Amino acid sequence: MPNILFADRIENWPRYEAPLHAALTEAGIEAKLSLPGEIDPDQVDYIVYSPRGPVQDFAPFTRARAVLSLWAGVERIVGNQSLTQPLCRMVDEGLSRGMVEWVVGHALRYHLGIDFFRDHQDGVWRQDGHVPPLARERGVTVLGLGELGGACASALASLGFRVTGWSRSQKSLPGVTCLAGETGLSDALAEAEILVTLLPNTPETTNLLNAERLAQLPRGAVILNPGRGNSIDDDALLAALDSGRVAAATLDVFKTEPLPPEHPYWAHPRVIVTPHVAAETRPASAARVIAENIRRSEAGEPLLFRVDRAKGY
Amino acid sequence: MPNILFADRIENWPRYEAPLHAALTEAGIEAKLSLPGEIDPDQVDYIVYSPRGPVQDFAPFTRARAVLSLWAGVERIVGNQSLTQPLCRMVDEGLSRGMVEWVVGHALRYHLGIDFFRDHQDGVWRQDGHVPPLARERGVTVLGLGELGGACASALASLGFRVTGWSRSQKSLPGVTCLAGETGLSDALAEAEILVTLLPNTPETTNLLNAERLAQLPRGAVILNPGRGNSIDDDALLAALDSGRVAAATLDVFKTEPLPPEHPYWAHPRVIVTPHVAAETRPASAARVIAENIRRSEAGEPLLFRVDRAKGY
Repeated sequence: MPNILFADRIENWPRYEAPLHAALTEAGIEAKLSLPGEIDPDQVDYIVYSPRGPVQDFAPFTRARAVLSLWAGVERIVGNQSLTQPLCRMVDEGLSRGMVEWVVGHALRYHLGIDFFRDHQDGVWRQDGHVPPLARERGVTVLGLGELGGACASALASLGFRVTGWSRSQKSLPGVTCLAGETGLSDALAEAEILVTLLPNTPETTNLLNAERLAQLPRGAVILNPGRGNSIDDDALLAALDSGRVAAATLDVFKTEPLPPEHPYWAHPRVIVTPHVAAETRPASAARVIAENIRRSEAGEPLLFRVDRAKGY
Repeated sequence: MPNILFADRIENWPRYEAPLHAALTEAGIEAKLSLPGEIDPDQVDYIVYSPRGPVQDFAPFTRARAVLSLWAGVERIVGNQSLTQPLCRMVDEGLSRGMVEWVVGHALRYHLGIDFFRDHQDGVWRQDGHVPPLARERGVTVLGLGELGGACASALASLGFRVTGWSRSQKSLPGVTCLAGETGLSDALAEAEILVTLLPNTPETTNLLNAERLAQLPRGAVILNPGRGNSIDDDALLAALDSGRVAAATLDVFKTEPLPPEHPYWAHPRVIVTPHVAAETRPASAARVIAENIRRSEAGEPLLFRVDRAKGY
């Protein structure tokens, strides 16, 4: 009977206890769930991991067969030298659905000019010039075509947007023009009336949206960043907002979170800050992913969502 | 060679002239397009109609084989006693796409609590309590499952919302719980955390959302009306907003348009007025619908989107 260590913050145990037991039972796994301090590290078979949890040194876990992250982003663990065990990301259907809803909602908010109407409830019937184009006349670019980026690109294409997707390696998605590499990036940016960044946090993506790349956007582009805070050069974005190259931005992730109260994004009239709410792991669906990977490991099947530590995701 | 009379407002002729010629050519129709005054009524074969145009008496058009409306809503012509010719509504793919975009955009705006974040850009990182549920936990009801209502219900269901649709006669749509009749209406309203009204304008739908029916909504429901202004009892809605039964409304259509500046909707803190922009007929796609119906009529095939004048739509 495998031993599973729940190594998220102890405050999250009440949210996960019942879903994990239910998912393990559903997967046909008999296992013992323990909290840190309840079990010796060398007795642990699987570690349910969070970067906010107490376990960050994996050396004592000599028997552990996998580290199963509750988080989609693994940038805080991927470079951990003590980690020799296989590492799996969380790819939670709930997380991906939540991300799609946030991205489509904010893309349509800009596309339809909703803020304009909300700000002009003054009795003046302004029809002329305020009928938006159809989505099929609006270029949206998604940077990053992983699980989340791919789901968002497909949802935007289903609504009719003219979607371009960009990723490091060439992908293929129905209804989406997929580009790759450095030349592809310039072309993808040039199409982006609305730019959605869903890149992983790696050394290559840090400040990817710098002044030079922001200058490749069409004038008046809008930026949505629900991905990772590292991908935007914040000073360059603030300058592009002030010059009008970028008309507006809605940002959910930041290099420092919570975003400090004195950060200029909070006060900028054309920036909306949302507090990292675009996608939250939901315990019920996340527990099913954890249980499925334990079932696979016990059955000698390949793990789902295994991280390539050289690539960093 | 059939004679077509363009009987919209003369100001719209420049927007329609080229698209109509192109669509007729594409449909293989040789026809003569005329403006009012350029042709005798008894020489006209087809009337391209708008309720804002100069032709409202159809008696002199003794030879006309069809009246082809540029508008989706036909409430201003359907009771016209001089009309003996077949009448067709406009079902423009552009109009339906635009409607879907408006409805999905405003539904997600409420679902995600976008207004809250926009109104709280004060440096406070408010995460707890502000992560929205997933769309699959949110009940959305669409009243009216015609071309537009059906397209909106399907798009909302694709995004994951728990969608209930209601129509006078029973319909069936994948992913949508379809209800009909008076009992069905109560059940549909009870599910409506977000209520979308896309009913035709008929005597039966006038003030359909009265005080009694608004009281059947869950407390804190949100109303989106991009359909017809007649379907809402405005005094009852304002009372329901003040009592909290209805939390907010976004309204695109009104009994009187433009909505008068002194109307209480403009000043209400939880109402957004948009100036009848949810769906606009687009000349290019509308012209293709007109040309296809002329082709069908000339070939002796049944007309598309023919209005049942007893039902009123």
